[in-house]
This record gives sequence, structure tokens and C-alpha cells, in this order.
Amino acid sequence: MERKIYLKKMVLDRALELYLSRLKEAGFFEPKTQKVKVGEAIDRVLARAIFALRSVPHYNSAAVDGIAVRSSDTVQASKHAPKRLNREQFMIVNTGQPMPEGFDAVIMIEDVHFLEDGSVEIFEPVPTFHNVRTIGEDAVEYDMLFCRYHRLTPQDLALLLAAGVFEVEVLKNLECAVVPTGDEIVDPSSELKEGFIPETNSVLVKTFLEKLGVAVRVLDPVGDDPEKLASTLQGLLPAYDLVLFIGGSSAGRKDFVYRALEKLGEIVAHGLSIRPGKPTVLAIVEKKPVIGLPGFPASCFTVLERVVKPVVEAWYHQSDSAEDFLIAECATRIFSSAGDDEFVRVALAKVKDRYVCIPLKRGAATISSLTKMDGVLVVPRGQEVIDEGEKVEVRLLATKKRIDNTLLFVGSNDPLIDRLSDLLIERGVRLSVVNVGSLGGVKAIAKSHAHLAGIHLFDSESETYNLPFLKKMLNGFVLVKFAKRLQGLVVQKGNPKSIRTLQDLVRKDVRFVNRQKASGTRILLDYYLSKLGIEPRQINGYENEELTHMSVALKVKRGLADAGLAVAYVAQLMDLDFVPLCWEEYDLLILPEFLNDERFQTIFDVMTSSDFRNVVFQCSGYDISDLGKIVEEDESK
Amino acid sequence: MERKIYLKKMVLDRALELYLSRLKEAGFFEPKTQKVKVGEAIDRVLARAIFALRSVPHYNSAAVDGIAVRSSDTVQASKHAPKRLNREQFMIVNTGQPMPEGFDAVIMIEDVHFLEDGSVEIFEPVPTFHNVRTIGEDAVEYDMLFCRYHRLTPQDLALLLAAGVFEVEVLKNLECAVVPTGDEIVDPSSELKEGFIPETNSVLVKTFLEKLGVAVRVLDPVGDDPEKLASTLQGLLPAYDLVLFIGGSSAGRKDFVYRALEKLGEIVAHGLSIRPGKPTVLAIVEKKPVIGLPGFPASCFTVLERVVKPVVEAWYHQSDSAEDFLIAECATRIFSSAGDDEFVRVALAKVKDRYVCIPLKRGAATISSLTKMDGVLVVPRGQEVIDEGEKVEVRLLATKKRIDNTLLFVGSNDPLIDRLSDLLIERGVRLSVVNVGSLGGVKAIAKSHAHLAGIHLFDSESETYNLPFLKKMLNGFVLVKFAKRLQGLVVQKGNPKSIRTLQDLVRKDVRFVNRQKASGTRILLDYYLSKLGIEPRQINGYENEELTHMSVALKVKRGLADAGLAVAYVAQLMDLDFVPLCWEEYDLLILPEFLNDERFQTIFDVMTSSDFRNVVFQCSGYDISDLGKIVEEDESK
Repeated sequence: MERKIYLKKMVLDRALELYLSRLKEAGFFEPKTQKVKVGEAIDRVLARAIFALRSVPHYNSAAVDGIAVRSSDTVQASKHAPKRLNREQFMIVNTGQPMPEGFDAVIMIEDVHFLEDGSVEIFEPVPTFHNVRTIGEDAVEYDMLFCRYHRLTPQDLALLLAAGVFEVEVLKNLECAVVPTGDEIVDPSSELKEGFIPETNSVLVKTFLEKLGVAVRVLDPVGDDPEKLASTLQGLLPAYDLVLFIGGSSAGRKDFVYRALEKLGEIVAHGLSIRPGKPTVLAIVEKKPVIGLPGFPASCFTVLERVVKPVVEAWYHQSDSAEDFLIAECATRIFSSAGDDEFVRVALAKVKDRYVCIPLKRGAATISSLTKMDGVLVVPRGQEVIDEGEKVEVRLLATKKRIDNTLLFVGSNDPLIDRLSDLLIERGVRLSVVNVGSLGGVKAIAKSHAHLAGIHLFDSESETYNLPFLKKMLNGFVLVKFAKRLQGLVVQKGNPKSIRTLQDLVRKDVRFVNRQKASGTRILLDYYLSKLGIEPRQINGYENEELTHMSVALKVKRGLADAGLAVAYVAQLMDLDFVPLCWEEYDLLILPEFLNDERFQTIFDVMTSSDFRNVVFQCSGYDISDLGKIVEEDESK
Repeated sequence: MERKIYLKKMVLDRALELYLSRLKEAGFFEPKTQKVKVGEAIDRVLARAIFALRSVPHYNSAAVDGIAVRSSDTVQASKHAPKRLNREQFMIVNTGQPMPEGFDAVIMIEDVHFLEDGSVEIFEPVPTFHNVRTIGEDAVEYDMLFCRYHRLTPQDLALLLAAGVFEVEVLKNLECAVVPTGDEIVDPSSELKEGFIPETNSVLVKTFLEKLGVAVRVLDPVGDDPEKLASTLQGLLPAYDLVLFIGGSSAGRKDFVYRALEKLGEIVAHGLSIRPGKPTVLAIVEKKPVIGLPGFPASCFTVLERVVKPVVEAWYHQSDSAEDFLIAECATRIFSSAGDDEFVRVALAKVKDRYVCIPLKRGAATISSLTKMDGVLVVPRGQEVIDEGEKVEVRLLATKKRIDNTLLFVGSNDPLIDRLSDLLIERGVRLSVVNVGSLGGVKAIAKSHAHLAGIHLFDSESETYNLPFLKKMLNGFVLVKFAKRLQGLVVQKGNPKSIRTLQDLVRKDVRFVNRQKASGTRILLDYYLSKLGIEPRQINGYENEELTHMSVALKVKRGLADAGLAVAYVAQLMDLDFVPLCWEEYDLLILPEFLNDERFQTIFDVMTSSDFRNVVFQCSGYDISDLGKIVEEDESK
């Protein structure tokens, strides 16, 4: 069986540098130009320097409403000894009016005293050109207005028109063709079967590139067929400056794009030492860049940002795109492979006057972390660990203002928290919700790595929630009671196997679906089983684990299991039957200092508002009778 | 005669706060929504929270190419004691393939040893879900994906499609009508007569607003007629959310827009205590914002940024637009009126490890300073002076990267410097050229407020240029010889009045045009006149001053004068005759530390390149035989 081999696998910087220089040698960055009307030239890049064709302004004019005078006539005028000017010594002018021949200054109307006999009094001397807009003051005919490769702004367009320039030569827009590949790729709107993947990369690639000024055409997906891929490329190259294939670039058995490019052109790099983003092919075919992007969304996005964007910027001869960074304290320990640069997507917030970053899902396949991230931190190759609490440099993808306005919510999540965050937006508070589990939440608050945490920790000794743990783990805490959630058995609609108690799980005809070890729900199950003296091995499917309430319910919904333990709400969502077992308490642990933050008051107000209660009442299995009660414990007292 | 009066003149913050709250009361910010396809929803703002309609991924799948196994079968496997799995204990799976029923983990193909008999060896145990993409891992059906008022990014669109959301409800785009006003306003492409002003604001307003997601329609200019303005507005209000008038908002005789708005609606503010931007009207007509923008470009831009943009952001419920600041040392003293907040446009650069800002032209009428600015500093009302060398906070309008890459060129300018900067762009060096005069240039270098300065300082005692001044003014300097410029008399084409020497200027039939006092050229003229024993009063037009070489030449070109003193180059540009007088030396004074900056080497290379020489050879009246000679003097030696 074939082993994976990346030919020419390279570190990112080296690969990019080499790729850009090879493209330069191929003449790819030689400016290709076109003429456009100034009115349509916004954001376009000038191909060459532009010179004024007329002076701005094109005549000497009054800069204010007032009287035109000769500065020499105004000497020695003062508040105490005003100077009188006769009808021949001044002329009334309005803003923009040409300066009358022989006059060289203007006195504002406010500073003029008009007398009965038609003469005026003035109260201070004025120098030549005072309040006069002189010809060419703004730009002089033949002046160079802009250098080559300048990107035109709104105000630039105004100056060009003022200077008599109505058409400019600009760099031709980069035209790019995008080709999704893979037999498993299907239209997202189609009925999805297992084994098929909705094609969601092309919209990402298209809109990402359009923001960079690239004209993009997306083709229909092409299957895993090197011949077809090759002929597609040959058809596109004459018409496009850049061709991007998505997927099929990984090494090994499915590396069809690589095989096609290998035949037609030069492979500059095959495989990059980055995560995500490794399965990338950088090729040059017919002197044009052809790139095989990875199919996993996070990988695709990383290569777009780190490889495709620089190529586009080089085409437009732009080198100063904004990249802002800030130093943040890393909330969790990160392990990374020594061989690769890893790009870790993070959520950012300001907690107690320093920035904190929390790594989001790191999988290459995740899209959600791309939508949630506020920034990216790089774990450079050679470094295997970033310690919890370590200061790291994070590249910003959100504005600092947005981050400063963000509250970090960690721990175990509940659908109600999302609904709460939606209501908070109206009040100008942004909640960034990151799941790290209940214990992770307690730890984060203990280390001041978040503003608030959602927790539901069952203590089997006292058979109560949260408080026993908090007393053990923290010296002093602030807990805000949130909601009781009904836990129970999710079963088929109509409960065909009439499952009534946990006892029924040992029946041979009942297939159970379990939650993963250490999850709150799993701990709860094992507690009840031991109380009932039921052995795990007696339960058919006990070892069959899922990661979320929802995936447990889905298994049941799809008939892959008959029962699973989850909260009532998911049964309602999925229209399944539900056998109540017990209420668990889901509460909010608050960073003590945050209690005095006005934004906490906002959260509290919204949480206890009728708007929020109305939301809760639509969700079954919640009891919010204690909502808003604050349990405070301060060891120092 | 009517005096200027602003009713309701207000400080900016108060006016904006009041305007926004009055618009809120009028219900203007109540979300108006529309449905759009996800593929077309880039940058649109969600009207309400969006929930996943299917789980992402929608099934459990292999995350890598490898073999599916039961984690329980893998325990105790190790490098030294590999564990053998028979045909029943594993299945080969490819990335994305559904997990075969009963298997719960995947081992990467690289880590599997395939044996002859079809069994395999593995070398380490794997936990459940190892290398498995579990159903709903990325997003679970019914999960809230985005809050209301979230602005959609490329990756957001990908997630929406993956989660089965193909259409979203977004906030309707703000629709804006722009009406230029004023009898003096004409089409920029028309033949411009004195007293008429090209209409260049609408393109600025249109493109500025389009970048904020506003749909803009620009109407033909309307004259200074309150009735016409009122009827125009009444025609527009039903169809547009926002109406902007440009010009005619100043107080006093020409305040036509104000008069029209006063009749039709509520005036919230008339006149703002800002410079530029004072002549602004903020009104509400039929519950919609109607704004009278100032006609001067810099004023118009300031009000766009400080008033219109916040209104647009409130419409889209966005509050976190990026505003970056940096602390810079102010290179020149700034005087400002105590009554107003003044927005001063500045050029920025990093000189000797701290940022320096140089104020650009401050007139409200200037467009060029809008195109040159890297940032804006505010001189708050109540403060009348910012001292030279004072640290100020500057709001950035360029990226830090661009500013760090900028070299500050000050002093007296010459067309060749612009051409040099155009060539430097190819080498990645950006030259920001700010005219402060020769003496200003020397002072800037002395204070390390610039990297290099262009100077031509004539010393009448020694009758030489630059060095005498530098020796007097600096202890130690680095001067790079640049070009000799030919000064002389610019006269009509064909020299009809046969002007041959300065002596001819005293002829009664010769009308002279002079340069302003203290300009290098004026000093030169006075020096030669005194040598020849000619009295200024003997010269017809001596008191007739212009500010630039070019405007002197223009006066001659237009027959308003017969002769003026200027450099030969402008005579060539304007196709006039030229009577040589003398060569002046225009040299580059370098910040000593900058000599060791590799960017100086780049400048030196380009300056002495054949490309640049070819440029110079096209311009008459330049002698660059000494170009590049370095004159260094170090007092400390």
C-alpha cells in the first residue's frame, strides 16, 4: 500500500519566498494595465505616476466672505486706531470669487466695520495673500500627484478630478479561477448522505479574494481524475491569471491535483510545514501561479491568508497590508508538533487589565473556530509547548475596540447562554463563549482567565451541585444561580420499547448510547448505576460513546440506539420522547472583580429581564426559579 | 449687511450624541430587514440570530487516512511490543469516510505496519474518537451560530452553508442621496472659468460611503435656490434613508440649505465647533437624517468621518470600527483657535525610534493634504498651542507598517524629488514629501524631525550655497550634492518684449511678477537688484507677489505679466521663453544617523541610477554633474 510522501515539503517562509521569486522570474508580476475613468477607479492601483493637468485652484480667489484689500493699505490699523479705507481701497468679495486685479488680501466680513458714507474701518493689518486661495495652492499644473502603485482613496479621486485628470492607467485586476475537486464533494443545498461533503470552501475563497480586489470565477467541482483536472487547467490558463484547486492536494493515494500539476508545470512546493495547511501544492504552469489548496476549511483559510494573499499583494505591488498584534496571556497549555509552524485560532478578551487568549478548536476540519476567532497565535516549529499563563504574541483579526468590548464566557455551555448573548448585543456587550468543560471553567476563573464560567459539577457525597467543588477548589467565589436542567433518558418517539427507568437499560433488546468519560452526564450515569447496583457490562452499548447531548439524541433519532442520557431540551428539539431522571444545577461562576464591572450589571439585568424569561419558557426542561440569586463566599472574611 | 450667525452651534460630541438620540427617538434605527442568499451575504449584517439547520459534520467520519479500530483493542500496544490486529479488528478508511459501525477510533496510515497475512501491527494505544470527526463536532443542529447584528465574513458564509442555512435575514442597506449645491459648482470636465468651482466632493462622498456599505445615488447639482432645494428634498425623502447636501451650509448670505431644512424639519445643530467642518447642518426631516455638508473638501471629509460615519454605523448597529492611535512628536508648533476642536492632518514617519508628525496644509479648501495624510491629530478646544517637540496622540489613517516604511523628506521641494520618490517605490521605499522651506528643512534635521531635507540657501557674502548656513546652524552635518537649477527670467513665448537682462525690468512697458518675501528666489532677486543698483520701486509689478515658481510662470503665460523670476524647468513645462540668470544649488541634507540606514543606500543607488538620470535629462535647466557627492562635517572631530 502506498505511503504518504510529500515531495519538496517546505517551511512556509522559504516556500513563499521561493514561489514569489520564481513567479517574478517568470514575469508574472510585470504590471499589466488598463485605463479606467476616475469615477470608477476607487481602490484601484495606479500603474504609473500621475501628474496634474491643471492647477488647483485654477485662479486666485477669496478664501472667505469679506473685502479684498491691498495689504500695503492695511499697515498700522489697530483696535484702538482703526484704519479707514475708501471705496477705491476695497471691494466686497464672497468665498470662491476671483481676486480683483491689484488686490492681494481679504479681510473677513466679521472684522469689517461698514460706515454710512460707503467707506469701511478695519482693525488690524493683514499680510499679502491673507485669506486668499492662490492659484496652484493645492496642486500645480504638471505637479506629480501620486507615485506609481498608489491605491486610490475617495479623496484621491476628488483631487484627480480637480486637477483635470479624468482617466487613469491602473493595474489590471487579478483574475482567478477556483476549481473545487473531489468525488465526495457535493452541492451544500443537496440532500447530504454519509460519506459526502458539502462544498463550502469556494464561497470562502471567492469572497476572501474579492475583498483583495481579485475577480473570481468558481467552477463546478471536478472529480478525482488527474486527466480531467489537467484538461480543466489547460482550458482555464489562457483566460485567468491565477488558478486555485481546492482539495485533492494531500499526499498519498488521493493526491490527484499534484499529479496533474506535476505533468503540466513546475512544482515549487508540495506540502508546507504548517498546521493547518500542510497539504498544499505551489506550482507554476505556463508562467502563471497554480495552487492546490487543502480541502479542510481551516487549512484552506490558513493557506489563503499566508500564501495566496501575498501573491495577490505582489501582483498589485502592495506591501503594507495591516497586521496588528497584541501580547496576551495564554489561558491553556498548548502542545504542538516540533516539525511544523502551527497557527492556533484563539478567542481574545481583556480580563483584569491584561489580554487573555483561549485556543479554539484546532482541527483542520473545523469552520466554526474560523468564525469565532479574534486572532491567531503561531507556535513556531521547534517549540512543542506553550505553557498556561505564558505571554504570547497574537495577530489580531478583530479590532482592539471589539476585543476590549468582549466578555469571556468559558466552562460548560448551555443553549440558554447563546440566547443570552444574543440579547446582550442589543445592550452593546459581546459575549465570547468558549467550551472548556465545568472544571476548566472553575480553573479559568481561579486564574482570572475569563469573566464568567458556566458550571454543573455533581458531588456524589453530598448529592448536591457546584458548591462543594467550589469550596474545595477556590478560596472565595461568587456564584450566580442560573438554571436547573432536567436530565433523563432520550428515547424514540412514542417510546416503542417502553423504557421507563435506568433498570430497563440492562434489557437485551435495548441499545444504549453513552457519553464520553469524565463528562458531567457520564459521571451522573455511573453514580446512579452504582446506586442501583448495575454493572456497566450489563448495558448493551455502554462503551458506545458520543461527545455531546445532541449527538446522543441524533443516534437515537436515527435508530442507531434506543436510549441515551441527555437534557430534556435536546429531546424537544429533535422531537423525541423523554424519561426524566433528575434536575442538575447549571450556574454561573463569576470573576469576583467582575462583580463591580458595569457590564456584569448589564448581564444581570438582561438575564433577569422578561425578554430572557420568554426565551427560557420556550425551552422545555429548564427551571429558573432561582435565577439571579448570588451565592458569595469570601475566605478572607 | 447680514452678519454670519450660527444658530445652535455645538461642540462635536454633544451635537453627535444629540443627533443620534433624536434619530433613535424618531425610530430611524429600528432594524429594516431583507432576505438574501448566503452566497451574496458577504459583509451584510444579520438582522437576527442564526441557528444551524443541520449538524456539521453530519456523520462520524475518519479525520485521516488510516485504519478504523476499537480503542479497547489497542491498549498496551507499544514501540517495543507492537500489538497485532486481525482482519476483524480493523478496517481501512480514508479521510471523510463514515466510521464503520462498532469502530471508535482511527490510526493514521503512517503508524500502521501491514503484514503479509493481511493483519497489521500498531505501536501505541489510541483513545476513543482518536482521529474521528464526530457528528456535530463543528456545529450541532439547532446550535446558535451567530448573534443578531453580526457582520458576515467569508468563513461565516462557509459555516452557514455547511449548517444548511442558504438564506439569511440581514439589515437593509442604507440608501443615501447626495445633492451637490451652489451656483458656482460645475462639472469638473467642463472648461473652467474663474469664479467657477469643479464639483469634486460627490465622488469623495459616494466612494467613502460605499466603503461603509451604503448605496449612494448622486444627483445633478442644484443652484442656490431654497425653493428648489426644498422641493428636491421632498422628492427624495420617500425613496432614501439619508439625504446629504454638499455646500451652501455656511452661515450668512449663502446659507440656502439651512433655510430649506429649517422650513421642512427639525434643525438639531447648525454649525459645529470644529475646524475644518464648521458650516454643517444636522437636521431631521420626516424622521430621516438630512445633513448639510460643508463645500470645502477638507471640511466635507471631516464631517463625513466624524458625523456621517457614526450615523451609518448606528444604522448597521456596528460599534467596533477600528481606530488606531500612536504617540508622535510634533515637528512644528501649531496654533489653533481656543473655541474649536481642530483636526490637523499630518504626515507620519519613524525617525530615530520615535514617531514624528508634520502638520500638512490646514486650509479647509485643500484636497491634497487629504490625499497625503497618514493621520489626524486633534487640537482640542481650549488649547491654543501645541509646541514643537510636544508628544501628541495621532489617529492613524495609514497602517503602522506603511508608516514604519516611510521616509520623511522636508525642506524646499523640487520636481525631481517627486520623480525620485516614484522610482523608489519600485525598491519598496516610500518617501513622504512635505514642504517647509529650506530653513525649515535645516531645522527639522537639526531636531531629528526628518530623514532628509532639500535645501537651496544662498549666502550673499560668500555668494555660495548651503554650506555657509549649515556651518553656522549645525555642529556637524552630512550634505549630499543633488542638482544645480538654472534660475532666470520667464518671459512670453518668442520674448516679444525682448527682455534680455534684469535691467530690462525697469522699462515702463515691462510688467513684472514677483515671489513672496523670504522665498529663496526673492532673496536672489533682491541680491542682484542691489548689485545692479536697481530700486524695487523702479520695477512695475515688484509688489505683485506669487507663492510658487509655477504661479509666476502662469501669470506670464496668461499675459498678466511680461516677466518673472523662476527656474528654467517651469518655462519648459509651460512652453515659455527663458532668460538664464544663474545656477542655484539644490542639495540634500541628511540626518547623520540615517547615513547608515540601508534605505539611504537605496535612495543613493536610485539617485545615481541611469533610470533617474534619464528622467533628469528630460527636464531642462538641471546640472547633476555633482550628484551623489557627499560633504561631511563633524564638529566632534
